[in-house]
Amino acid sequence: MQKYFISLNDFNNREITGSDVFHIKNVMRSNIGDSIIISNQVKSYLVKITNISEKVAFEILQELDGNKELPFFVGIFQGYPKGDKMEDIIKHGTELGASLFYPVLMKRSIIKLDPKKIESKLIRFNKIAKEASEQSNRDIIPLVENIKKLEKIDFSSYSVKILCYEEDSKNGECHKFKNIIKNLKESDKIAVLIGPEGGIDETEVKYLESIGFISCALGKRILRTESVVFYVLSTISYEWELK
Amino acid sequence: MQKYFISLNDFNNREITGSDVFHIKNVMRSNIGDSIIISNQVKSYLVKITNISEKVAFEILQELDGNKELPFFVGIFQGYPKGDKMEDIIKHGTELGASLFYPVLMKRSIIKLDPKKIESKLIRFNKIAKEASEQSNRDIIPLVENIKKLEKIDFSSYSVKILCYEEDSKNGECHKFKNIIKNLKESDKIAVLIGPEGGIDETEVKYLESIGFISCALGKRILRTESVVFYVLSTISYEWELK
Repeated sequence: MQKYFISLNDFNNREITGSDVFHIKNVMRSNIGDSIIISNQVKSYLVKITNISEKVAFEILQELDGNKELPFFVGIFQGYPKGDKMEDIIKHGTELGASLFYPVLMKRSIIKLDPKKIESKLIRFNKIAKEASEQSNRDIIPLVENIKKLEKIDFSSYSVKILCYEEDSKNGECHKFKNIIKNLKESDKIAVLIGPEGGIDETEVKYLESIGFISCALGKRILRTESVVFYVLSTISYEWELK
Repeated sequence: MQKYFISLNDFNNREITGSDVFHIKNVMRSNIGDSIIISNQVKSYLVKITNISEKVAFEILQELDGNKELPFFVGIFQGYPKGDKMEDIIKHGTELGASLFYPVLMKRSIIKLDPKKIESKLIRFNKIAKEASEQSNRDIIPLVENIKKLEKIDFSSYSVKILCYEEDSKNGECHKFKNIIKNLKESDKIAVLIGPEGGIDETEVKYLESIGFISCALGKRILRTESVVFYVLSTISYEWELK
């Protein structure tokens, strides 16, 4: 069943406004009497549509159990990749339970910073996160932060810092990542840093290690930058959500 | 370092022919004296380029250790998805270690079968698998089989059959997948069946269960069809490649 995240204000008015109305009417072709799921990012509810006009009115049928979230806060710090890959990373990373995305300008990122475009990109990134949260039935929408240079990012609130580093994979390293994931504690907040296509510059590796990042290999093969987020989030789910 | 899979015949002649020549000359802009990795799908070698013309000649510098493969044969049986998603699934599934892909026509697949296009699609799929194998430094190239209807596929050679079923995830099932993966035996051959966007029809679920498939949930969220292959292969790598 389709889920929609709405504002607390709309929730209190028992109505849906904005672009979700178009989606309900024209994409899902819902009718009065149909059930949908509404979340105000605090709780989720099964509701019945009672009117469709420029807004969609609803009444609550029942509160739903939440708990669709990974047991840890996972921040994805993604070295800014080429083309539309950042969008794919946000879409699929959201599905797999990421808590926050940080597009990071790194030495080997190939991107020209046009301030006007960055603003519209950020709006688009957050829209993608909202839609992916709805599709995958998350309890919350992960935030996509503004693009920042690596050295401007404050990682001090993170208790566990993972650097996904392909050189380790080439060297046959194969225990650090699993060791970290297996030994996570309930209150841990995890930062995952992923390089862009060209990889992570050696000076960046040294800097990241100096602030507590542990470089890890993810299996024996060389993963594309856009695949790394999948590996990390899937394996956290596997280790901690499956029994 | 870039890897190229070449035929045994070319290998015996110590030359590279076909479309890889264009890649070496125009994409990688390699020169005489540069090193590349060559695989004949039996062994991999570090080689030095000794001549570049319409063919690329090389001499062997050293044999390389292989062993970049998952410890199990994993066949991905993918309910044929919309648009270009099959290509993404082959590309990323290859990176993550799949052994074979089977595009499967299922009840909820939306595809019209044009025999001419299917042939060119199959050629394209296998080209994507070759390129992804080279990029990710695999020892072998997974084969992409021809598109088949579900009921025509013979699963009898597979000892472990996993059905990725989102209804299980909705119902809170959370132990079957991990239980299967943890208890794999060395000689196991794994079939993974993934439904198309619309999911798996109930009659298909019943049929698959009747021939030994075990339906499993993959975490608490609803994954898109193209994300499921990531989850399955990443977690097999995590469980069996990482220590």
